[in-house]
Amino acid sequence: MSNGSDLTQRPLEGLTVIDLTRALAGPYCTLLLAGLGAKVIKVEEPKGGDLARENSPYLGRDGIQVERRHDDDLSLSHLTRARGKYGVSLDLKTTEGREVYFDLVRQADIVVENFTAGTADRLGVGYQACHAINPRVVFASLSGFGATDRDGGKAMDVIVQALSGAMFTSGEPGHPPVRIGIPVADMLAPVFTVIGILAAIEQRHRTGTGQHVDVSMLGALTSFVAIENWSAMAAAGMPSRTGLTVQRLSPFGVFECADGYVSVVAVHEPLARGLFAAMGEPELAEDPRFANRDARVANATELEAKINAWSRQLPLVEVVRALEAKGVPVAPVRHPEDALVDPRVVARKETMAVEHPTYGSSIDLRTAGVPIQFSGATTGFDDALPVRIGEHNESVFKDLLGYDDDRIAALKAAGAI
Amino acid sequence: MSNGSDLTQRPLEGLTVIDLTRALAGPYCTLLLAGLGAKVIKVEEPKGGDLARENSPYLGRDGIQVERRHDDDLSLSHLTRARGKYGVSLDLKTTEGREVYFDLVRQADIVVENFTAGTADRLGVGYQACHAINPRVVFASLSGFGATDRDGGKAMDVIVQALSGAMFTSGEPGHPPVRIGIPVADMLAPVFTVIGILAAIEQRHRTGTGQHVDVSMLGALTSFVAIENWSAMAAAGMPSRTGLTVQRLSPFGVFECADGYVSVVAVHEPLARGLFAAMGEPELAEDPRFANRDARVANATELEAKINAWSRQLPLVEVVRALEAKGVPVAPVRHPEDALVDPRVVARKETMAVEHPTYGSSIDLRTAGVPIQFSGATTGFDDALPVRIGEHNESVFKDLLGYDDDRIAALKAAGAI
Repeated sequence: MSNGSDLTQRPLEGLTVIDLTRALAGPYCTLLLAGLGAKVIKVEEPKGGDLARENSPYLGRDGIQVERRHDDDLSLSHLTRARGKYGVSLDLKTTEGREVYFDLVRQADIVVENFTAGTADRLGVGYQACHAINPRVVFASLSGFGATDRDGGKAMDVIVQALSGAMFTSGEPGHPPVRIGIPVADMLAPVFTVIGILAAIEQRHRTGTGQHVDVSMLGALTSFVAIENWSAMAAAGMPSRTGLTVQRLSPFGVFECADGYVSVVAVHEPLARGLFAAMGEPELAEDPRFANRDARVANATELEAKINAWSRQLPLVEVVRALEAKGVPVAPVRHPEDALVDPRVVARKETMAVEHPTYGSSIDLRTAGVPIQFSGATTGFDDALPVRIGEHNESVFKDLLGYDDDRIAALKAAGAI
Repeated sequence: MSNGSDLTQRPLEGLTVIDLTRALAGPYCTLLLAGLGAKVIKVEEPKGGDLARENSPYLGRDGIQVERRHDDDLSLSHLTRARGKYGVSLDLKTTEGREVYFDLVRQADIVVENFTAGTADRLGVGYQACHAINPRVVFASLSGFGATDRDGGKAMDVIVQALSGAMFTSGEPGHPPVRIGIPVADMLAPVFTVIGILAAIEQRHRTGTGQHVDVSMLGALTSFVAIENWSAMAAAGMPSRTGLTVQRLSPFGVFECADGYVSVVAVHEPLARGLFAAMGEPELAEDPRFANRDARVANATELEAKINAWSRQLPLVEVVRALEAKGVPVAPVRHPEDALVDPRVVARKETMAVEHPTYGSSIDLRTAGVPIQFSGATTGFDDALPVRIGEHNESVFKDLLGYDDDRIAALKAAGAI
């Protein structure tokens, strides 16, 4: 598949990103850009830095710990989200700090921020200020409710999950909502922000100028929820929130085994017959209650009880084997730790191992990779990590901006870096 | 914010997409590309077409119905996913059909397919064949387990949710897994496919050639699951699957009201004090069980019981009002139908109304928009919809490919279109 391409190149090579982001949503956006080959310069306040540095657990000389013990213990959150990024310290509240920032913006293709809406402008480092200095810059804002929102309040993942309707899509009818264990609100907005940035970069090839890209956590997640036809299903009298199974496709959903759970899909005729055979009850295929799709849907509760009565007696591996033997789509419901080491996702770098740059790790610590394969490019992260705040000040300020030692010393003295 | 830009242009204008996709994952990818301004030509088999045309419910002259009644009833699935796409019929199993296909590929920047892995090559319409004819083409494959997988079986959303670990991230410890009600496996892979396509288009500006982009549903969703530090949390003895609340951040999570549920976050000191005041129990802030963060985490079960005892007595609106008055982050857990008409997401076109092109709709039918705002561009869909299979054969085959009436008649006679 290589077509003789240079597989050491990454697709976004040559693009430079100034990264003002903190916590999860913003840093995940710039992590994807870094993994695709952009040069990402992470800007942190000289004191404190990214909040994610304080997230438990930590990795260090004593292995993995709930509490920080040593100066060089690293939060797993920071270690995973700052991979491949070059870190500089910069106090944007100082005049000198903003001068350095605008020098960076002059060299940049992309700026990304996820301050509370309005903060970047108030600091004087927002889109208009950057556009005035470098009209080619694509400036991306990631916020809870949109860049112009002024009263939406704090947009933590669990708040946005609640507002978006996502929590009420899952769970059994009549039961409480479900907090989705993946921080989907935090994660989805940055994925759309990457799309917005790359679309704006494409437009820049035509127009020569950048623009402001503005993505909201609420909007990104609500748009996902909106792909199901909620109002139409309600109008048609069709149940929408249906828990572990979907009875209008019966048998379809999650069933219980003696030691776990499996997903099973046997919507179509041959699959239903395969399921009945695997259950040792091939005669059900002739039973008027289950002999065709309409009958199975009408008697779904009874059918699901029969399947569970069979699968509950057996270990998960046997249920999977029996159904696979009959060609029925089936999968174990895996725990995240098992899922992350699936050889398929490991081979494709969709999950990747991380370790402490000095102390390594005694166990396999898996985190997110870039889940895209290119035939003519590679993905992955530079061997760079801002262990300390300002880790790469020297190389960025000297090599990229051309500052001399005196200038750097003066900035340090002013508390700007 | 306009900077005098032409807000009638969309960011991906000028790019042409040949869309071989069916069902949900693939069509959502090309829907996003269409909304961003690419010209998407949807290719369907002359007989049958996209499976999504058969999904209940339907919209037509009798309004919304569970079963199709009239020829011009449209599946809501098709109506929402085919927005802004130009539809042609093409039998890729015929020599004539493939000739037309390659004529389209010659005009194309992007091809997207989500056949079972290997099928596109077997049909002779895969990446290598397209690359040979038009080396600039970016060819994207969206599959369950990757383009080179040959034995992964059927990759329905519920199967991939199970394998990815996503189902075991949600729900109470010791309880069954949770089927996430949003088809996240189907939806996430296409979002990453758009990123892969745009990154490859960016690389093409440097190299002049396209490449193969290959995204798997399992990889995309597993990479999302992998952002949480599952192994590290297990190694540190920290619980990871924690249900409606997260006790290590207590009070944090979902609480019950008399008529619904709310999300509440009061992790930090002033927020906890605000919560206690809203509850009418300001003295809890001095109670040694709850007086600081460590104490609240240690006594989280007791604290959550106290909060629920208060909130269960009150209507949701009163709980929200009381907490907002004290500056505590709070949100109602909304049902999808309410979430989709939030004025913020409506104003930003993050959800959009659809209707039948002939019969409209008597109710507001909301579906997904493109959740990205551009200061120098707009998003949205051309007024095009392949109501019938081959709806836009004339315009595409004549105007884009330059075929004459005789050629089109011959293709029809051969059953190729």
